Amino acid sequence: MSSRNQSFFAAETAVTPTGPGTWSTQVSDAWNIGTNPNGGYLLASVLRAMAEISDHPDPLSVTTHFLRPGGGGEPGEVAAELIRTGRTLSTLSGSLTQGGKTRITSMAAFTDLGEVNESPITLEPPDLPPVEQCVARSGDQQGVDLPLRSRIDLRIHPDQALAGQAGDAVVSGWIRFTDDHPIDTMNLPLLADAFPPSLFGALGYIGWVPTIELTVHVRRRPAPGWIRGSFRSSDLTGNKMIEDGALWDETGALVAQSRQVGLLLTQE
Amino acid sequence: MSSRNQSFFAAETAVTPTGPGTWSTQVSDAWNIGTNPNGGYLLASVLRAMAEISDHPDPLSVTTHFLRPGGGGEPGEVAAELIRTGRTLSTLSGSLTQGGKTRITSMAAFTDLGEVNESPITLEPPDLPPVEQCVARSGDQQGVDLPLRSRIDLRIHPDQALAGQAGDAVVSGWIRFTDDHPIDTMNLPLLADAFPPSLFGALGYIGWVPTIELTVHVRRRPAPGWIRGSFRSSDLTGNKMIEDGALWDETGALVAQSRQVGLLLTQE
Repeated sequence: MSSRNQSFFAAETAVTPTGPGTWSTQVSDAWNIGTNPNGGYLLASVLRAMAEISDHPDPLSVTTHFLRPGGGGEPGEVAAELIRTGRTLSTLSGSLTQGGKTRITSMAAFTDLGEVNESPITLEPPDLPPVEQCVARSGDQQGVDLPLRSRIDLRIHPDQALAGQAGDAVVSGWIRFTDDHPIDTMNLPLLADAFPPSLFGALGYIGWVPTIELTVHVRRRPAPGWIRGSFRSSDLTGNKMIEDGALWDETGALVAQSRQVGLLLTQE
Repeated sequence: MSSRNQSFFAAETAVTPTGPGTWSTQVSDAWNIGTNPNGGYLLASVLRAMAEISDHPDPLSVTTHFLRPGGGGEPGEVAAELIRTGRTLSTLSGSLTQGGKTRITSMAAFTDLGEVNESPITLEPPDLPPVEQCVARSGDQQGVDLPLRSRIDLRIHPDQALAGQAGDAVVSGWIRFTDDHPIDTMNLPLLADAFPPSLFGALGYIGWVPTIELTVHVRRRPAPGWIRGSFRSSDLTGNKMIEDGALWDETGALVAQSRQVGLLLTQE
């Protein structure tokens, strides 16, 4: 239901005030992976409610615990609270509830990323073939329906596009919205959760890897164009994996870092 | 006030129930860096309150926002709430308040790390000279009093012990409690916040770097003995730095990963 002037993201993560610190939202099923909405998409509506009451415009640090899958195509209630505000930071908590059950709970610090003083300490982007030599992520590759493809255009490194192909727990590629809407800092947490699990590169398809907790640090406002991303699983034990990721804009500037702990579901 | 049978940590992070979901604690000044308690130490009492109501024993993911400095030598009130519990995870929130002001607010997932199935995907420990060739962290090196030394024995890599010496934003070394109490999963978030800022290695002393947000992922129960740690600043912009760290036990097993965003205070 995106209008000509509104991005899919803006339309499908919109929140409407219903009281002090509460908003309603309509969770779309267009961002699903299989039958569940992408976690980063669920987070986006909570982030938007936070932004409405934050004294600072850009999310700097966003931690989300995924308590239960969300319901695509169902309404939701968003709550957000400003815990503290100061000159540099606003600190907030928030949650998304559907059908009386909390689906995700988040904590975030917002700041102003418009003022930049650079240092030589940063992460360099990975080498990636040009977009047209990369491989569009399809649901077929992963054995699931991927409605998310209608919203996110993800092109994976040709050496990493098939499960087990990389031989290492890495995945990298180019990402943007299918409507080519310019990407801002509010979009980055979603894009940091839109790549397939990097474990697939080393282990092949090993079932679903639901996120337990995801923390995204936004570093800079992105320049227009494609975002490149690179993700690596750094540790796996007791069926719990850690995956580190980073996003860069087309100029090669680091725009976000992410880390998540996920649960490797073994087949019974 | 540690008894012969109780570690400094156990005695000085103890929480006493005062009502449903509330505890009292006494914040010691023995864990101070300069005039403020170490952030990881403040977190420890909140973590202990969480553990009291968690259905799982080990912290897996712990995110803390540091809203205001804590008061060493002053009493505090701890709150904790069990948000959700399931077969694999307990999810909790918590906070520490002193003098009516919230000092830190945390969100955590607990699990059982006793059951381990290993995979080849992990982080290898850094090469470190033996403990006796490393350099004890002293307050002199950093231009501050360091009461924390009475509680934490930290030996820094001899090539990284002086500010600016490493030439790179890294710091590594060996760490344990001064009372040599065996380290468990509840101690690891504190130890992940006890090294000097790795930025010092590249930039020299550049003022205080207060933590905005710290997330620690505990990976395994540590074997007895020293813990080795390695920390690196991955990005610095707009006076906000990201530092990644990891801790390994004496067998070389990865026991925790950490990431924090900190604020580089510039001198006026």
